[in-house]
Amino acid sequence: MLERLRTVLIGTSHPGNIGGVARAMHNMGLGDLALVAPRGEVITQDSISRASGADHLLHSAHVCQTLDEAVADCTFVVGASARSRTLPWPMLSPRELAHRLPGECRQDNARVALVFGREDSGLTNDELHRCHAHVHIPTNTDFSSLNLAAAVQVVAYECRVAWLEQQAATPDVACASDQREETQLVSHADLERYFIHLEQTLTAIGFHDPDKPRQLMARMRRLYLRARPQQIELNILRGILTATDKAATDQTTQPPR
Amino acid sequence: MLERLRTVLIGTSHPGNIGGVARAMHNMGLGDLALVAPRGEVITQDSISRASGADHLLHSAHVCQTLDEAVADCTFVVGASARSRTLPWPMLSPRELAHRLPGECRQDNARVALVFGREDSGLTNDELHRCHAHVHIPTNTDFSSLNLAAAVQVVAYECRVAWLEQQAATPDVACASDQREETQLVSHADLERYFIHLEQTLTAIGFHDPDKPRQLMARMRRLYLRARPQQIELNILRGILTATDKAATDQTTQPPR
Repeated sequence: MLERLRTVLIGTSHPGNIGGVARAMHNMGLGDLALVAPRGEVITQDSISRASGADHLLHSAHVCQTLDEAVADCTFVVGASARSRTLPWPMLSPRELAHRLPGECRQDNARVALVFGREDSGLTNDELHRCHAHVHIPTNTDFSSLNLAAAVQVVAYECRVAWLEQQAATPDVACASDQREETQLVSHADLERYFIHLEQTLTAIGFHDPDKPRQLMARMRRLYLRARPQQIELNILRGILTATDKAATDQTTQPPR
Repeated sequence: MLERLRTVLIGTSHPGNIGGVARAMHNMGLGDLALVAPRGEVITQDSISRASGADHLLHSAHVCQTLDEAVADCTFVVGASARSRTLPWPMLSPRELAHRLPGECRQDNARVALVFGREDSGLTNDELHRCHAHVHIPTNTDFSSLNLAAAVQVVAYECRVAWLEQQAATPDVACASDQREETQLVSHADLERYFIHLEQTLTAIGFHDPDKPRQLMARMRRLYLRARPQQIELNILRGILTATDKAATDQTTQPPR
């Protein structure tokens, strides 16, 4: 289970914090680190010092430019967030998240991303809207900003405890392969392609105006991210869009009957 | 409960770590810090920087020379420890410790000490034997040494979660009405009306053939029932169907442009 968890840091300013995150991850048995657009060098004296022996995670870290790239193959994406947002999103405590992980990690292609934002400003709304759920670490309301490595420490600790509880339980029987196929989860990249297609279609049929978006696409994202579409369901949803496109296009290309 | 918890650091080498501990404590709502024989100055640029706004805990910290002095008034003393010791001692996980706290803190004179040792060597056997119980943070067996502030973070986090659970046991005020409206679930009847509309539209755009239904509508039901649409989301979904209907109908009623 732990090997299916990826820690994603976005726009980190201080290399020392990346080192602290590497140490926290390795302490808890996590090994997959992705860095999105880190500000400054990753391998520095400070980051290696704070990693305190876990610097192999710094060297093996996948550095990329966008969140989409970092989580393209992920089937469950969770973003660390302060509590209040304009548009409420599924919100988990670290413990609730941890309790979901054994189920989330059961399938062959499962990959879970734990996404953490900038030291000063966290994740943007756009980044948060790419997540299936948000995780909020309960903090003192008067002093809520955790150090980045401390936030990763808490979430990784909960993941490890859930994993230990799973190990302690009786080994589970794998579900039948046809059942697995039926319920295969879709990747982040597939789902993002769907959202792009959905927005195009809604625009084409005059339901959506990208210049006056209001919160339409955010609400659609929240709905479908919450629903966790399976591969076969996403195929249907895309098929519906294609049929809708055709119905809308025929209007302008075919003579009236 | 949280005000009855004292964090005790013994023989800390790096002032920065004391600052990191202060931040972790304040983040979780803990305020009582005692320092036993710290090695070097407590108030330094590094400790204040790592405290990141929680430096009042550094200034108010009680500095003393022995563990006995630091925990003299405590009714329950718990020492952080690696797992294996020559003489087995009552051993708690951070969660087990946290679950005991509401009971331990019930009495008027209750005071609980959470004792953490040196960065390099932890607590001595003599110090551990002054504790009622030991707490062990589960770590990667190959890389078990946590940063001091990270260890305090994990234990303080568990204490806070236990405190929040205790608070939740007392009846709480209902959530604000605007939040309720946003997340209002739809009735069975509304959802059924949506499914009827969906089937009509999918038929109209040629995606669905009621005579050869296969499992299309069943799959759509499973998806949307699982998603538990809220009222506002269902309004959008119905709006999309209406716009699709219009796009499909225009085809047969309007002249080509």
